[in-house]
Amino acid sequence: MIHSRVPVSDLREHVGRTVSVRGWVNALRLQRAMQFVIVRDGSGMVQVTHKRDGGPLEARLEALTPESAVRITGRVVEAAQVKLGGLEIVPEAVEVLNPAATPLPIDDHTGPEQRLDWRFLDVRRRPAAQLLFAVQTTLEQGLREYAYAQGATEMHTPKLMGTASESGAEVFELGYFGRSAYLAQSPQFFKQMAIAAGIDKVFEIGPVFRAEPSFTSRHATEFTGVDVELAWIDGVEDVMAFEERMLAHAIAKVADRHGAGIAEHFGVQVTVPTTPFPRLTMAEAQEILRKGGWDPEGVKEDLDPEGERAVSAHIREATGHQFVFITHYPVGIRPFYHMRPADDPGLTLSFDLLWNGLEVTTGAQREHRYDILLRQAAEKGLSPEPIRDYLNAFRYGCPPHGGLGMGLGRMLMVLLGLPSIREATFLFRGPNRLTP
Amino acid sequence: MIHSRVPVSDLREHVGRTVSVRGWVNALRLQRAMQFVIVRDGSGMVQVTHKRDGGPLEARLEALTPESAVRITGRVVEAAQVKLGGLEIVPEAVEVLNPAATPLPIDDHTGPEQRLDWRFLDVRRRPAAQLLFAVQTTLEQGLREYAYAQGATEMHTPKLMGTASESGAEVFELGYFGRSAYLAQSPQFFKQMAIAAGIDKVFEIGPVFRAEPSFTSRHATEFTGVDVELAWIDGVEDVMAFEERMLAHAIAKVADRHGAGIAEHFGVQVTVPTTPFPRLTMAEAQEILRKGGWDPEGVKEDLDPEGERAVSAHIREATGHQFVFITHYPVGIRPFYHMRPADDPGLTLSFDLLWNGLEVTTGAQREHRYDILLRQAAEKGLSPEPIRDYLNAFRYGCPPHGGLGMGLGRMLMVLLGLPSIREATFLFRGPNRLTP
Repeated sequence: MIHSRVPVSDLREHVGRTVSVRGWVNALRLQRAMQFVIVRDGSGMVQVTHKRDGGPLEARLEALTPESAVRITGRVVEAAQVKLGGLEIVPEAVEVLNPAATPLPIDDHTGPEQRLDWRFLDVRRRPAAQLLFAVQTTLEQGLREYAYAQGATEMHTPKLMGTASESGAEVFELGYFGRSAYLAQSPQFFKQMAIAAGIDKVFEIGPVFRAEPSFTSRHATEFTGVDVELAWIDGVEDVMAFEERMLAHAIAKVADRHGAGIAEHFGVQVTVPTTPFPRLTMAEAQEILRKGGWDPEGVKEDLDPEGERAVSAHIREATGHQFVFITHYPVGIRPFYHMRPADDPGLTLSFDLLWNGLEVTTGAQREHRYDILLRQAAEKGLSPEPIRDYLNAFRYGCPPHGGLGMGLGRMLMVLLGLPSIREATFLFRGPNRLTP
Repeated sequence: MIHSRVPVSDLREHVGRTVSVRGWVNALRLQRAMQFVIVRDGSGMVQVTHKRDGGPLEARLEALTPESAVRITGRVVEAAQVKLGGLEIVPEAVEVLNPAATPLPIDDHTGPEQRLDWRFLDVRRRPAAQLLFAVQTTLEQGLREYAYAQGATEMHTPKLMGTASESGAEVFELGYFGRSAYLAQSPQFFKQMAIAAGIDKVFEIGPVFRAEPSFTSRHATEFTGVDVELAWIDGVEDVMAFEERMLAHAIAKVADRHGAGIAEHFGVQVTVPTTPFPRLTMAEAQEILRKGGWDPEGVKEDLDPEGERAVSAHIREATGHQFVFITHYPVGIRPFYHMRPADDPGLTLSFDLLWNGLEVTTGAQREHRYDILLRQAAEKGLSPEPIRDYLNAFRYGCPPHGGLGMGLGRMLMVLLGLPSIREATFLFRGPNRLTP
């Protein structure tokens, strides 16, 4: 006889009936007279209670190991004394679908690197980690919903490139049928080609690759980028307005669906941001920071992580807002394709978005005028030949446009208050980590 | 004064008013007394009509070139004689946002390879190509909707791997901080790790990389894969049932939103498939084919493209259905991780899905039992060491599971009746093509 498979969270509806649950052995308490097995599935945990009787079921339960995948069929009964929902299952059949070897290679005291070695066990055993990927799914769903509603087209641009175009440094090179190819550090050039191809609003979520030997808590050699590019904009403000509304929509969706769980498992209250987000020019940000003693030598062009945290803290204190756009970065620290304001060619029409002190986005209006783009590339010491295909996209009527790139892992880090991007990624990749 | 920006398709609502349209110069007819400019945006085309008057506007219109990006401000007037909607715009201001050089590098007679060299112009100038990416967006949206509704979690698994694990052949190798890394040929191993991590239903859309020197109309070195993996299945039938419902949902969404446009631009009537899809075992398929004279030597284990087309045609004739699952592939032509039926170890619990004669999916129940998996790997001549991390996922309670991988470009090919996957991809990558 087949019994209906029931998620643990629904067992109360089946009191008095025989059902099957499937999941993992979370814990075993094998006492002299009684055998207790805690079974965990994606929805919760339930106690299986068996009175020893010398029969085959007793032997089977005795042989269970923690984290084995099991299917247990039994009667659901009220048991007020049981903390897990006041229910227990009296087993009739116990099936081991996949036994777990003992001992497990990680436990609650295992350090972070070894947990990454056994990431599948690390994620499976921690409800917070399970929740993280549910939150990621909802966050993406929210971002896409907004982008779709604005008429965006989802594109998949190549990760294999013929030239190390964007910067030359920090790019992975591979053998490609007797020549070299390179992994895209972002969809930047290709999403701009999609704009030149008449796609009005481009949306892409996909992997980006950075050959940076960085070992910080916020860098990875491969991460998931969320990219947007918008045609026919009047200015970079249109890009920031798109982003803040997209984020507010997606975060509201996360708060609605997972707010309580995030509070329970991460101790974080999700705040749905109001729009517009605060904006500061880089000059204003630096003035604020220098009053607070940042960069006493007065030599820094860019914000360092300390500066990012301080300016975010300042805005949070002044306005209560977790986000701040920093705009008008100087030309020296922005790529050649960022547009410059006509009245101040030392600046760019660009922005970063900081969220609770962490940079989560870089964006800009792009220079779409061929002659100016060529001149700006030359100023940065770039030869036009390796980027000829890119430059050609601006010779035949490319409309004004701008866009942004977000790091999905960084957003999850801030949203859930995680100490490292390693925790916000299923299988992290860094200079010293290519496995599992 | 700022005039409201109006998409061409909405102009009728603005008759008698002054508006701005932005788009590309589709065609110019500069006559002795009159100047006509056809402007195209994403929504349609409109005629701009100017009577020569020797003024600056005349000079500006005279200097326009095809495909220049323009903003034209003018009054919308009724003009029954004009084929484009019975309207025209009498211009008051003409702004060239980005001029197009002349001549254009491609025209209506350009061959396919050179069109790929100038893909952005190729896509921009053809309404069918514009529609293709809208269809891609809707198709993905439909696939995701179904997967989300089933409780799937969207994962982003690494494309960088430490070992050339899946097959060894056909894999791209890259330098990685003094050692080698490899590009994932599919998310296969990683989505199975996600199952081992307790994720119940895994969904991923992302790039996959194949170092195959194939030059057919259906192969690419990089393409977009749609991957699903399902835990706790009772058998491979659960995987096929998931796929056919997911496809039926997504294709219905495409038919609803784009059916008329697809009929107009591709000459294809979108058929929403009924479920369940027909199923044939490989043995049945071969019997049918051999009756029709296929493989007269009787030596082929697998279906070749000709066999795939013939069996699809047979099913279409017999049942009217465009889809057919071919199941129970022999062990010799399936990877080591496909599960084998207990009563027939020469076969696998696997399937391909053919759509109008083209293979668009491979799927299977996976072998989750560590000892058997190890034995099957050894039988295929695989050493366990390079796949140790993968194998470890089966030692600690990995539940029964199965899944599938679809090629997004191949599905678009069939859906829209395209002759080549090159047409179904924004920027195609093949052994001889790494640009633009």
